[in-house]
This record gives sequence, C-alpha cells and structure tokens, in this order.
Amino acid sequence: MYRFNSDYTEGCHPAILERLAATNMDQTDGYGLDPYCEEARTKIKEYFSCPNADVHFLVGGTQTNLTVICAALRPHQAVFGAVPSHINTHEAGAIEHVGHRVLPLPSEDGKLTAEQIKSEWIKYDTDPSREHWAQPKMVYISQPTEIGSMYSKKELQDLYAVCKEAGLYLFIDGARLGYVLGAPANDMTPADLAANCDVFYIGGTKCGLLFGEAVVIINDEIKPDFRTIAKQCGAIMAKGRLLGVQFGAAFTDDLYTRICAKGTQQALKIKQALLDCGFKFVTDSPTNQQFVIMTPAQFAKLSEEFALSHIAYLPDGNYSVRICTSWATDDAQVDKLIAMIKEL
Amino acid sequence: MYRFNSDYTEGCHPAILERLAATNMDQTDGYGLDPYCEEARTKIKEYFSCPNADVHFLVGGTQTNLTVICAALRPHQAVFGAVPSHINTHEAGAIEHVGHRVLPLPSEDGKLTAEQIKSEWIKYDTDPSREHWAQPKMVYISQPTEIGSMYSKKELQDLYAVCKEAGLYLFIDGARLGYVLGAPANDMTPADLAANCDVFYIGGTKCGLLFGEAVVIINDEIKPDFRTIAKQCGAIMAKGRLLGVQFGAAFTDDLYTRICAKGTQQALKIKQALLDCGFKFVTDSPTNQQFVIMTPAQFAKLSEEFALSHIAYLPDGNYSVRICTSWATDDAQVDKLIAMIKEL
Amino acid sequence: MYRFNSDYTEGCHPAILERLAATNMDQTDGYGLDPYCEEARTKIKEYFSCPNADVHFLVGGTQTNLTVICAALRPHQAVFGAVPSHINTHEAGAIEHVGHRVLPLPSEDGKLTAEQIKSEWIKYDTDPSREHWAQPKMVYISQPTEIGSMYSKKELQDLYAVCKEAGLYLFIDGARLGYVLGAPANDMTPADLAANCDVFYIGGTKCGLLFGEAVVIINDEIKPDFRTIAKQCGAIMAKGRLLGVQFGAAFTDDLYTRICAKGTQQALKIKQALLDCGFKFVTDSPTNQQFVIMTPAQFAKLSEEFALSHIAYLPDGNYSVRICTSWATDDAQVDKLIAMIKEL
Amino acid sequence: MYRFNSDYTEGCHPAILERLAATNMDQTDGYGLDPYCEEARTKIKEYFSCPNADVHFLVGGTQTNLTVICAALRPHQAVFGAVPSHINTHEAGAIEHVGHRVLPLPSEDGKLTAEQIKSEWIKYDTDPSREHWAQPKMVYISQPTEIGSMYSKKELQDLYAVCKEAGLYLFIDGARLGYVLGAPANDMTPADLAANCDVFYIGGTKCGLLFGEAVVIINDEIKPDFRTIAKQCGAIMAKGRLLGVQFGAAFTDDLYTRICAKGTQQALKIKQALLDCGFKFVTDSPTNQQFVIMTPAQFAKLSEEFALSHIAYLPDGNYSVRICTSWATDDAQVDKLIAMIKEL
Repeated sequence: MYRFNSDYTEGCHPAILERLAATNMDQTDGYGLDPYCEEARTKIKEYFSCPNADVHFLVGGTQTNLTVICAALRPHQAVFGAVPSHINTHEAGAIEHVGHRVLPLPSEDGKLTAEQIKSEWIKYDTDPSREHWAQPKMVYISQPTEIGSMYSKKELQDLYAVCKEAGLYLFIDGARLGYVLGAPANDMTPADLAANCDVFYIGGTKCGLLFGEAVVIINDEIKPDFRTIAKQCGAIMAKGRLLGVQFGAAFTDDLYTRICAKGTQQALKIKQALLDCGFKFVTDSPTNQQFVIMTPAQFAKLSEEFALSHIAYLPDGNYSVRICTSWATDDAQVDKLIAMIKEL
Repeated sequence: MYRFNSDYTEGCHPAILERLAATNMDQTDGYGLDPYCEEARTKIKEYFSCPNADVHFLVGGTQTNLTVICAALRPHQAVFGAVPSHINTHEAGAIEHVGHRVLPLPSEDGKLTAEQIKSEWIKYDTDPSREHWAQPKMVYISQPTEIGSMYSKKELQDLYAVCKEAGLYLFIDGARLGYVLGAPANDMTPADLAANCDVFYIGGTKCGLLFGEAVVIINDEIKPDFRTIAKQCGAIMAKGRLLGVQFGAAFTDDLYTRICAKGTQQALKIKQALLDCGFKFVTDSPTNQQFVIMTPAQFAKLSEEFALSHIAYLPDGNYSVRICTSWATDDAQVDKLIAMIKEL
Repeated sequence: MYRFNSDYTEGCHPAILERLAATNMDQTDGYGLDPYCEEARTKIKEYFSCPNADVHFLVGGTQTNLTVICAALRPHQAVFGAVPSHINTHEAGAIEHVGHRVLPLPSEDGKLTAEQIKSEWIKYDTDPSREHWAQPKMVYISQPTEIGSMYSKKELQDLYAVCKEAGLYLFIDGARLGYVLGAPANDMTPADLAANCDVFYIGGTKCGLLFGEAVVIINDEIKPDFRTIAKQCGAIMAKGRLLGVQFGAAFTDDLYTRICAKGTQQALKIKQALLDCGFKFVTDSPTNQQFVIMTPAQFAKLSEEFALSHIAYLPDGNYSVRICTSWATDDAQVDKLIAMIKEL
Repeated sequence: MYRFNSDYTEGCHPAILERLAATNMDQTDGYGLDPYCEEARTKIKEYFSCPNADVHFLVGGTQTNLTVICAALRPHQAVFGAVPSHINTHEAGAIEHVGHRVLPLPSEDGKLTAEQIKSEWIKYDTDPSREHWAQPKMVYISQPTEIGSMYSKKELQDLYAVCKEAGLYLFIDGARLGYVLGAPANDMTPADLAANCDVFYIGGTKCGLLFGEAVVIINDEIKPDFRTIAKQCGAIMAKGRLLGVQFGAAFTDDLYTRICAKGTQQALKIKQALLDCGFKFVTDSPTNQQFVIMTPAQFAKLSEEFALSHIAYLPDGNYSVRICTSWATDDAQVDKLIAMIKEL
C-alpha cells in the first residue's frame, strides 16, 4: 500500500545519502564544530541573504521549537500561536515544559494576521491587571502552516511590522519550508523571509534529509549562548557533522528547493483532480499538504490502495482527510491516485 | 471613597486578629508543626467530614494552585480549566512555570460541565495521535467561580463521576469558598464538597483571614511528600503557626461561614436593587461578587463615591463592572450604594 | 521549656503587631500597590542609601531566593553558593525547580571569598568545553551566613569587585540581616552593603516581623518585570500592605536594627560564658547564632531546661549544637541558660 | 592528523550504513512505530534477557539522561551521581532544567559504591529536617564510567541491593556500553546488567551507529507514558525507523559487542605500551578510554602527529590526557602511536 499520509515516510534524498556515505569515515570534531557545518552555515546565509545570522543545526521540529522559545523568552513570557499550530497541538506540552505559555489564537486557515496580533497586543497592553498575565513576547507562525496554507510577502511584512512595534519576536517554523520555496504561488524570495522575522528554521526532516532543522537567528538579542541552551535541552548532536553534511548537500545546486518543488507540484496535481471532481477543502493549500473533505465511503475506497490520514470527523458526518506528497513521492503513484479519485 | 472593588481590601476579622495577638509571644516549632496548626487541621477535617484528609496551610491562591498542580501531575499532564478561570488568566503563567499546560474550555457562566469534560476526554482518548498531546489528568474548577456563579450539588456530583470514570483528578479552588458556604442558594454541605473531589482548598485571604489557604487532600495519590513539594515551591511559612492560629479561629463557632454569609447577603441586597432598576448581569451570581452591565455614564457616576472594578468593555459600548462585598463590608455603605443605584 | 532553638519561634515585635492592628480595617489596593508599601519602600531606600533601587516585598526566604534567581538568570545559568548555604541545603531543590543549577563551593566558615570566585571563574572561562557546562552567572552569599559568621566590608568589596570583573551578579541573602546590622563587630553601614551587590534582601521573618522579606534590586538588569515573575512564582501577597505596614514600622525609629542588636548581644553573652567554660565552636560567630561543640551529656543536661538544636554528630562523638537568640529572647532566660552552662 | 581524542569522530560502521541505504526508500510510519524498531526491540530484549522491558530509541546521551530522569522522578526528587559523572558536568544543567537536583558524590575512580549510597541514604533518612531537602530517589552511574573504569558484577549487585532497600532507582548510563561488553576484564553478561538496575541505556552514538541510544526500562513504575514524556522533551525522532534500522543491525550477529571489543583491545594495547614505558594513569581503565599522566613536553610531542584530549592540569605541572579508541580506530595508527610513545 502506497503512503500519501505524511512527508516523513522515507529516508532521505539519494544525493544526501551519498554525501553521508562519502564522508562517513572522515574524522571531525563534534558538536557542530566541524568544516561540514561551517560550510553549510555559509551556504544557508548566502541562500537567505543574511550574512550576520547565526545558524545552528538541531535534530527535530519539537526540539527546535522548545529550544528557540526557551532561548528567547524570560520566564514570564508567552508565545502567540494559531490554535492549529504545532506548538499548541502535537508537542505534548513541550513549550510549557520549558516554562512558557502558548497563547492560542483562533484561525480558520492556520495563519495569524497582523490585525489579530495588534488587537491582542492592545488588549494585553491596556489591561490594568496586565502584571498578572503571562506577558506576550513572541509570535510563532509556520510557513507553510500545519494545514498547508502559506503567507504572502505582504502578509508577512505586515505581521512583522506589528511585531516590531509591539516588541514581539517573530519566529517562523519552517518544518516544511521547502514546499513553499518551490511553490508556484509563493511570492517571497528566501531573502524576504529572512528579512521579515527574528528567527526561523529550515526544515530538513520533511524536506529530503534524514533529519535535521537549521535554526537561523537574525535578531542579535536571541543569539547569546544559544549553543549552551541547546545542549541543556538535549538538542546538540555529538556528531553534529551529520547535520552539516546533509544541509550542505541540500543547499548545493538548489537541491532543497528543487526536490520540494516537485513534491508541491504533485500535490497541486492531485488537488486539481479533486477540484475537478467537485471536492471541497478545509482550507486552500498551495503546498504539499491537501486537506480534503470526503464521505466515509470515499475515504474507505481510497484507503484500499493508499494510506491517507484521517484527520477529523466533521459535524456533517464527512471526514477531513490529509493527502500529503513529498520530495520522495512517486509519479506513477500520483497518477494512480488521481485515476482512482476520478472513479469515485 | 469606599471600596466595593475587591474582597481583600481590609486586613482580617477582629476575632482573628485577637487570636494572633493573644498567641503572639508563644514559642512554637516552625513550618506548620505546631499545636495551633494541629488543632486547625482537626477542626477542618471535622467541619468537612473528611477524617482521612491531609490538611496543609499555604499563604496565597496562586501559590496554592501551582503547588497542588505540581504535586499531583507528572510532567506531561495537563489541567482543564474554564477560559475565565484563575489559572488561565491572572496567574502570570504560574502553571506553565511548573511545567504544565492549562487546557482552556469555553464557559459562559464560569463553570465546567460533566458533559464538557466527558466530550473533551473522549476527544483526547480516541485521538490516534494522543501520545503527542499533553495528557489531561486534572479538572480545575472554582467554587464559587471567578465570576460569582456556583455549582449545585448535582452539578458537582456529575462532574466528579465523569472525572473518576476518566481517571482525572478534580481540584476545587475555594479561594472564596466562604461566600458559597453561607449563600442562601447553596444546596451543598461542607461534607458534600469534600466527598466530591480529590483535593480542594479553603480560601482564607478573601474570607476574613489576613492571608492563608488550607489545602485539603482527599485522594491518597496526591498526599505523598506534599510538604516537601510545597517547600520547593517556596510555599511553606517559617512561622506556620500564623496560619494555624487563623484557621483555628475561623473554624471555631462557625466564624468562617458566618462572616462570609453576611458578605453574600449584602451582595444579594445590592443585586436585588440593580435588578429592580432593570440592570442586566454578565452571569447570574448567588455569591459575593456581582458582575453588572452599566453604561459608561452610570459607572462614572457611581465611581464618584465608590471604588468599583471596571472589568471589560462590551461590544455595545457598555461596561462590565464588578461590585464586590466581603466579610468586612459596612452595612451603611451598602445602603448608600443602593440609594445611589436607585438614583441613576 | 524555653526555646533557644531558632529565631522564628515567636510572632512579631509588639510595635509591629500594633501597626497591623491599627491599620487592620483600612481599605487599600492589593498586590503591594498601596501607600503603606510605598512608604516602606521610601524608608528602606533611605536607610540603605540606594535611591534608585527597586524594592519588592515577598513572604519568605526560600520564595525570595527562588524568585530573585529566576528573575535574574537565563535558562542555562547557574549560581555559586557555599556548601552550607541555604539554597544548597534546606530549600528542597527550589532553585533546580526553577531550572537553575547551584554550584556548591566548599567553605569552612560559611563564607565565599573573592579568591575562590576568581579561581572558579577562571576554571570555567578557560575550559575548552565550557559551552557544555552550566554557565556561572551569580554568586549567592548570606550576611550573616547560615552558621553565624559575617562578611567584613573589605571581604564584601573584594568579592564584589571579582564579580563585576567576571560579569557575575552578587546576591546577598539577608534573612538575618538585622543581627549583623546591630552587631558590635560589624564594620559596614547599610549603604556599604547596598553599594557592594546587585541585589539583596532584608529578612523580616527572623528579625521581628510576623513574616516578610524585602528584596532590594540595585542592578537595572534585574529590575524588568520582577513583579510579574514574582506573581508567576506565587510570591505576590494579595494583601501586600501587610508587608508594607510591617516593614514601614520596622524601619521607623531604627526599630529593625535596634531589636536585632539586642538579640545579637544576648548571643554574645552566652558565647562568652561558653568560652569562659572552655567550649569550642564550629566557627566564630559574631551574630545571633552560636554553633558550639558539646558532649552528648552536656547537650542532654541543657536539654532538660531548654530547647536547643542538635545540628550534627561530629566524628569524635561530640555534637554540634545551635544556640539561637532573637529580638524576642528573654533576658532572664539568657541568665538562666548561662548559669546552667557554668554548672556543666 | 589522526584523532584519538574521542569516540565519535567518525560516522558509523559500514554494516550500519549499508542497512540505512538498503531501507532508505521504504515507507514506514513515524515516531518509532515501524517494523524496524519493533525488530530492534525484540533483539535487544533477547540480548539482555529482559522480555518484559520497554525499549525506546532516542537520539543522544544528554537527551536520554534528561528524559529518563524527568520520567522517573517527582518534582522534589533528586539523583545521586559521581562528581565526574556526565549529568554533573557536561550537560549544561540539563537535569536542573527539567527541575531536578544532581547530588554529587566524590569518587576517585568515577564509580559509586554500595557503602557510599547506603551512608548517604542514612544521612538523609535520619536528618530531622529531611522534609527540607531535595529527596534522593535515583542513583545514576555510567558503565563504563566517564573516566574509563568499570563496575564488576559484585559491585553492581551490591549497589542495586542498597538501592532497592532504600527505594532508590538505579539508572545505568551505557553511552559506551559496548566497550565494556567486549572488554576482557568484564565479568558481567548482558543479562546481569539488566537484572541489576531499574533502567539503563545502550549507547549507539559512540559505539558504531551514526547516533542513537536505546533506553531499556526494567522497572514497571518508570514505564507509563514514557513516549509522551520523550515527545515533550523533544526526544522523539519523526523518522524513528532510522534508530530501529541501526540498532537492529547492531544487534545482529553480535555486531555491537564485536566492533566495540576491538576498540577496547586497541586501547589496552596502547595502555600496555604506556605502562611499559612507566607512565602513570589517573585511574585504571579496562575500556576504550585511557587517562594517562604526561609532561607537557610529552603531550606536545605526541600532538604533532595525533589529536589527543588535554583534560586537566595537574597540581605537579603535568597533564591528564585522554587517549580514546573506538570501533573505527585504525590498527596502523595504533601501532604508529605506540611506536611514538616508546620513543618519548
């Protein structure tokens, strides 16, 4: 049975595996202090046009979120996130575990807006008992979001302008960043992204690497002692060079964006087929995850041949179903899925 | 200007001050290991008919909430609370500071219902990715609630039945418990309360003492090493006997319930006057806090003579205003306020 | 049986109780935002000649230590303390509970020296793997120490100079500060103390108040949002004015230093008697706590009439015994104890 | 320059890389719920004769230590560790970050003894103020230790007997376990190890894998919800199968023990050469790390050809130097190093 249920079902792109194999018996220093990491840092700073950034390599997404938030906030500070955001849902309380409150904000499309943050900030800032509230200090967004939607350049610029005005850090979770960078609908350059936030990370795990997330810290305030805080969070790999080798390969010849672009195109092809057949979607997604509404029978039928993710029961009895492609998705299987959709 | 803006504007009831003065130069052991604390524990266990309970005396409400939750939960466990509940609002992230997530549930009247908890529990328990969620393990309610409403015996019994079925602890914050115990509309005995939860606390700070909250632990699972965890949370008073003396006096001759009953009666008298004049309320409150809806002009007028709490701006331009009585409220001032209300 | 076993066996000095009684039915705002607190802050800033300090009133010592350390340090930062220091012994892991490591340093007399800190700092700073160590950022000392000894002005100045050089905060726990301020051997003015640290606190609980510790923050870096962090730690009293009233009274007419001076004098009288009889001491103490070495038989004999603290079994079979006086100690009982010592 | 400075300078054993490559494009579920992990769990439980154990795969050592300790302890509980133990030194305060105190115990050879734990436990258990101490609940040891020494079967049995008597968990950090399992001087079977502790982990990172540590939980009390707590600590890999594949390969045909045995033999060969030349050692090590005492000149000379770790300056002006072999060490380089030692 072929899986369209997630974007981390396979290992890594062959080019990356090849680099790991080629460097396997090299001897290097540990903890990210090796030439491969140094090279990867340089490439990333070039790719995102942020020469003064600090780049750190961690292993996974939850770990990266908790480490960045832990490093950036003082004890009483809190982070805004959309209700469906990863830190508010599938991290088992990781942010609270490092002592911080997630302030969930409603969102139909998974995104937060400049207006929303402005209004929430004013609510806090004008509350006579604000000393008794957890203090908002960061806005956490995902690009693309957990439900596939994507910020436009204008949306991000507006959001960041509000953040700066209010003294809030803007943190972008890019666990699936590749699927945006290579999306036809994307109107942002990598440099635009880096210029409109305080810290972001480039997801490797879901974008062609075996594992790994590259944290890019733009704002100097968040930089001091990040390595020690990461170590304290159990987030520093002994053989850090495994991350450097992988990210170095990913940011060579545009591999990262290129392989993810293909994943996005496959998802859009499936989306078009679904639209053609009259299916509705939970939200409009221009990236590699499509959240489509199906009857139980339709879901059951497709599940005979494909693993899809049943996400939620809708009030009308239908299902919200995730169809997910990735850098690894097989074209033939996409065609087979589309054919089956058309037969439904 | 006379204050109706909170129930902790004065010191303590004269009978309690007298006992503090009378015992002032006695020499005792510290940390709650003195005869006054022992006597107060006995009286409380009798009053609430819970002979096997452990009783501990802490200083304030936020401190008590964080200590109880810290002692009861494992790291990944979370606590349900109503959106307007104290732990979800005015504790500056204290629960997250000890590592736990507050799971806020919507509530019009400040109360949680058995149906709500049941449905939330099922949602969690049937989620295929529940391992990635903070695990619900406790339900936190306040009796009376932060907006003055009150659980009936039936409501509490139903809620506790659901909790037991789901393996959730029920924790009752009784920061204003006296104003329920002495409320005409209350249909629960102290024994009913203790029989329908795992742990609760009896508020002293707002109910006639200088300060102090008495935690009553019913469930054996929450008992071990509570004193050490409280010490670790900075919640053990060196001169613990100050709490024993006060609670001992409060639970002598029914003082606690008696003085709070008067506060509740005064609030109900004001409420009746407001109802007579056609005022609407945020929620129906049978206790010492009344949340009434006023025009800005009405609020401004009353504020010339009285300190009231402006709680919120309502969408229609009106204000939500808290009028609060206590054990200390002066009858003449109540009459004066009522007269002024009638003139509005 | 009369107690010489601790300095928190009684309530508070009559003058303080009187002020509490006199202000009992006054109505004020909560959380330390009342005129009594404001007045006490002014008096304290005058007394210690630190007009730009922030002064906050908390309830107890452990609470104060954990709140100050929590407010001052980033997650990976640690605090040096003497092995016998309070944060390293009797706080049940409170500092670790807020996430920070205590770095214990050996000390015969309970004090830390400038040389010791300098050497420890160099050890850290020159360690090639220092990124993997908890980062020292604060030095915690007690004046007087937990075993009665006292820093001279020179010692404190030297220590603070090293701290400033290394970028370490110096935090002085003054839980028993009164017994130093009024000690004949003390060569520091209150202003000297405030001028040679980043933050200190003035102990009330053991120095004539019912309870309460006044945190005095000198260093601007530690000031922001201290109230919110204290709230989050459960350390803000609802009726904050109880602390303001007490500290206001204590810093009127030099009451604080005066009543503690008497306690110290009584201890020194007992010490002299012990010296005259040939007793040895664990360390030389010029303050209200005397740690004397006794045979089991001597301890048993004195214990027939007095409660003393048996602190430790010594290798030679003798006991280390604490004899503790306070603002409340009765002269007649001191004489009786001395007479009994002479009979041993 | 060839490195003898650590055992994580290379990638992984070719057989493991081969398995990763062979399974790279397989599609599996995430988070360790895949057939490769299941197979690896079965092999590990067989190898250590612990059929009822729970086996979890995490990424690195610090992460594993903090997750296990976090899962096992209640908030006020603490863990004994030797002064040179990893949790007490190079984890940047990770254990404190999850709220727990490390109780450091002196150790010349890196090991803790049954007598030491017994005496420390009695000291705690008989202290009249033990409620104010962080409560010891776990003993953490490393096998082999951080300085190369090794527990005998008798030593481990005695230690575990004391732990059980005192109600302490025994946790064995096996970051370098392979170098003991394959050591000539080892008198324990894998089954002996599993039978004499509550939880241990099998180090992969330093023993032939790219990364990964396998936690084996023997004691039922530590098992519940471990996966959720690991998720909360950021310690669950999305592509968990990478760990299953590696550990599965490592525990096939005894690969793990076999390749590490060779590393140990190489170290012992170097050790013998050093002994023959009259060198002294910091402690006697029968495993892959040798801590030898050298003059600065000797160290400088060897450093011309080899990377060694300068660990510490000794009081007599000499250096403590670590020479470290691993599964990856080249025989020719060992011979070259030995030749050079003999020339010194």
